[in-house]
Amino acid sequence: MIILGIDPGLRTTGFGVIEKHGHRLRYIASGTIKTGTEGALPPRLKIILAGVSEVVATYKPSCAAIERVFVNVNPQSTLLLGAARGAAIAALVGADLEVGEYTPAEVKQAVVGSGKAVKAQVQEMVARLLKLPGLPGSDAGDALGVAICHAHGMDTLALIGALSPAKPALHMRRGRLVSS
Amino acid sequence: MIILGIDPGLRTTGFGVIEKHGHRLRYIASGTIKTGTEGALPPRLKIILAGVSEVVATYKPSCAAIERVFVNVNPQSTLLLGAARGAAIAALVGADLEVGEYTPAEVKQAVVGSGKAVKAQVQEMVARLLKLPGLPGSDAGDALGVAICHAHGMDTLALIGALSPAKPALHMRRGRLVSS
Repeated sequence: MIILGIDPGLRTTGFGVIEKHGHRLRYIASGTIKTGTEGALPPRLKIILAGVSEVVATYKPSCAAIERVFVNVNPQSTLLLGAARGAAIAALVGADLEVGEYTPAEVKQAVVGSGKAVKAQVQEMVARLLKLPGLPGSDAGDALGVAICHAHGMDTLALIGALSPAKPALHMRRGRLVSS
Repeated sequence: MIILGIDPGLRTTGFGVIEKHGHRLRYIASGTIKTGTEGALPPRLKIILAGVSEVVATYKPSCAAIERVFVNVNPQSTLLLGAARGAAIAALVGADLEVGEYTPAEVKQAVVGSGKAVKAQVQEMVARLLKLPGLPGSDAGDALGVAICHAHGMDTLALIGALSPAKPALHMRRGRLVSS
């Protein structure tokens, strides 16, 4: 199963692709989509849309997850970040992918084991879990963290399903298990 | 020339399609795309993406314009509004349309002649300019207003081009004329 993680941003959108084989995770690819720092919003969103679509076409993930970013400096920045996130999600749902959403705290919890871990710890654990030769870049590392978080969520679901086959009607919402 | 105007929102996205023939404007269609009030963000953005894409496929506009919405209650709402706007813009740029952006004040200025007009005045002028049999709905009316605003902007550009052929290097940015 191939999982695509996205760390959205207007200037830089990080992506990370991992493969999940049982409990094993394998690194496949990661990188960033950059839109520069200037210019009108629509052409910048077009770059994000095209970039995420290209990643989807190249690695053919079976599901995706995106960071639920909180912010920020001012309402205008928040609106722009929301738009970047919306364009990235549009690329994913436009390719008929299911998209999970996780807060930074949920990603930290899944990757490091504590929702209060600092960013450097996340990068280090991402590198260790995926056996990377060095630390990933910040945006790509966050995106890989989101993908790992999604993979763990699926494990938890599978485990609960195995323990209590009579109650399979659980699903993940906002990184938490809820009954349907 | 067919112009598509969009009034973005997470619950309700308004659209309005008009035709511009010289200085004449003709109503073609308008309506809303509704995502309900519940559920995770990605499937709701998918509805917006699919809805705007369908409007584009049906009316084949040659350009589009979207309201530059300002807000709001809290950062979370702003982020969600931004995401809805991002998904709508993604549908437009994904169809290779150029997208103009206008603030509510610019739309009011273009439609009513005053940036401080109240919403009811805008609805009334939209109905009068497009010879509608009655007042349009709020979201559809705003979207038609955005389309009219975009049509006026193009007229101004054409006029300046005709008056001073030596200085054609002007374009519209944020509803204002600027030199390239």
